[in-house]
Amino acid sequence: MGINREDYPHTGGMRYATGAPMIPAMAVSTKHADLLSRLLKDDKNLNFYMEMHCQTLEDAPSFNVVGELRGSEYKDEIIAVGGHLDSWDLGQGAHDDGAGCVQSIEALRIFKTMGYKPKRTIRAIMFMNEENGLRGGQQYADLAKLKNEKHIAAIESDRGGFTPRGFTISAPQDKPEKRAKIQSWKPLLEPYGLSDFGSTGGGADIGPLGPQGVVLIGYLPDSQRYFNYHHTSEDTFDKVDKRELELGSASMAALIYLIDQHGLK
Amino acid sequence: MGINREDYPHTGGMRYATGAPMIPAMAVSTKHADLLSRLLKDDKNLNFYMEMHCQTLEDAPSFNVVGELRGSEYKDEIIAVGGHLDSWDLGQGAHDDGAGCVQSIEALRIFKTMGYKPKRTIRAIMFMNEENGLRGGQQYADLAKLKNEKHIAAIESDRGGFTPRGFTISAPQDKPEKRAKIQSWKPLLEPYGLSDFGSTGGGADIGPLGPQGVVLIGYLPDSQRYFNYHHTSEDTFDKVDKRELELGSASMAALIYLIDQHGLK
Repeated sequence: MGINREDYPHTGGMRYATGAPMIPAMAVSTKHADLLSRLLKDDKNLNFYMEMHCQTLEDAPSFNVVGELRGSEYKDEIIAVGGHLDSWDLGQGAHDDGAGCVQSIEALRIFKTMGYKPKRTIRAIMFMNEENGLRGGQQYADLAKLKNEKHIAAIESDRGGFTPRGFTISAPQDKPEKRAKIQSWKPLLEPYGLSDFGSTGGGADIGPLGPQGVVLIGYLPDSQRYFNYHHTSEDTFDKVDKRELELGSASMAALIYLIDQHGLK
Repeated sequence: MGINREDYPHTGGMRYATGAPMIPAMAVSTKHADLLSRLLKDDKNLNFYMEMHCQTLEDAPSFNVVGELRGSEYKDEIIAVGGHLDSWDLGQGAHDDGAGCVQSIEALRIFKTMGYKPKRTIRAIMFMNEENGLRGGQQYADLAKLKNEKHIAAIESDRGGFTPRGFTISAPQDKPEKRAKIQSWKPLLEPYGLSDFGSTGGGADIGPLGPQGVVLIGYLPDSQRYFNYHHTSEDTFDKVDKRELELGSASMAALIYLIDQHGLK
């Protein structure tokens, strides 16, 4: 059976190795790639005409969007949760990463609706420009350092709005006990379908916070459908299941609650 | 947020408690139920006109469909795997239970393609009439008894063609070790996302085999989207993800392989 065959291309970032000739390159769908391969097999001298209208425009101002619930007891300890605002222009970016943005906002909304007063400051961040250079994530980390902010953990949702499976966790090399502490909460989260805490990793946007000693966490949903939609014209709102999306927000809120209550020493 | 609000009704079986008045009843969508509630709130004397064209027709002949790979070593020990052929008439029955039927066939196809020669007889069964009386399942169990067939396990897929999560397992009351044996295989299956072996249950169609001492197993996929489609006009082929469906077939084949190799003493 192998991989799905599709009519639509998956786009994404592209770069040239140092010294490699900068030949033109474009994304084509798997079905069109199959067709090209068949045609080339029949005719080794096949001529292929390819027209692209891509261009890189001048930089323009853009912004991260940040909201927070101020902590009551340790307000200087920040738990960040975020996704990224930008997406590839051929779709809507509903799963990549509209889902992560609304889940991050929703985690804070859940706390507000419950009347929960966090001990620590919980901050939702919509990062700008993940897809084309990670400048929002980099700028956020630079500003955090400049302002001497203390992030204890950062959670990113950037794998789509699908059914929860777990979290990926990366702790600073000299603080493995922080990762173990989060993993020790597995019995509390497993009844809700969160059973996978075994992988490392955080997320692209929160990555630049890593060198500041921040525990990086990635929300891990079911992965089976993400790459049907990722970076394609099919990544549209109708592909997001409301219930699955909400379960993800609730999972993230549950983990934030545990970190807020118990800290990460 | 609560439950999803939908425009389409979920149909299904319906019965009257003994002695209860047999008032007319019909399925309506959640949105139409909301509308009716609002209208009734505004006008207690609201008249509601309801027209139904349902009827119960005379019985007509129908059949279970059965295929098998004959065992080489213990051919009299049968491992059954099945789904049901019938569905509610307002949709296509793609998830309920077209998925279970094709997964059962696919499990056998996988073995054939691999050139695997089973020790025991592996039988795929498409049961008839699950939705309206379970007659196919009952008839299958009756015939198994009549022919003195020895089923060691029966697996049913009737929860939709979604990402695998695990299996539900019910063993005869005096043979709990058979359930424990299957659960002991969890480390072999967990790397493929099958981590939930904690619930009991098999499936409606295989249920009648239970009194014959058969271990009953239900394939347990992710449950979040099943009741978006179940018994509605939305249960159509386009709602089935090929990859998720195939992962289910492979999961069932893996469990059948383990039972075939190790038996269920």
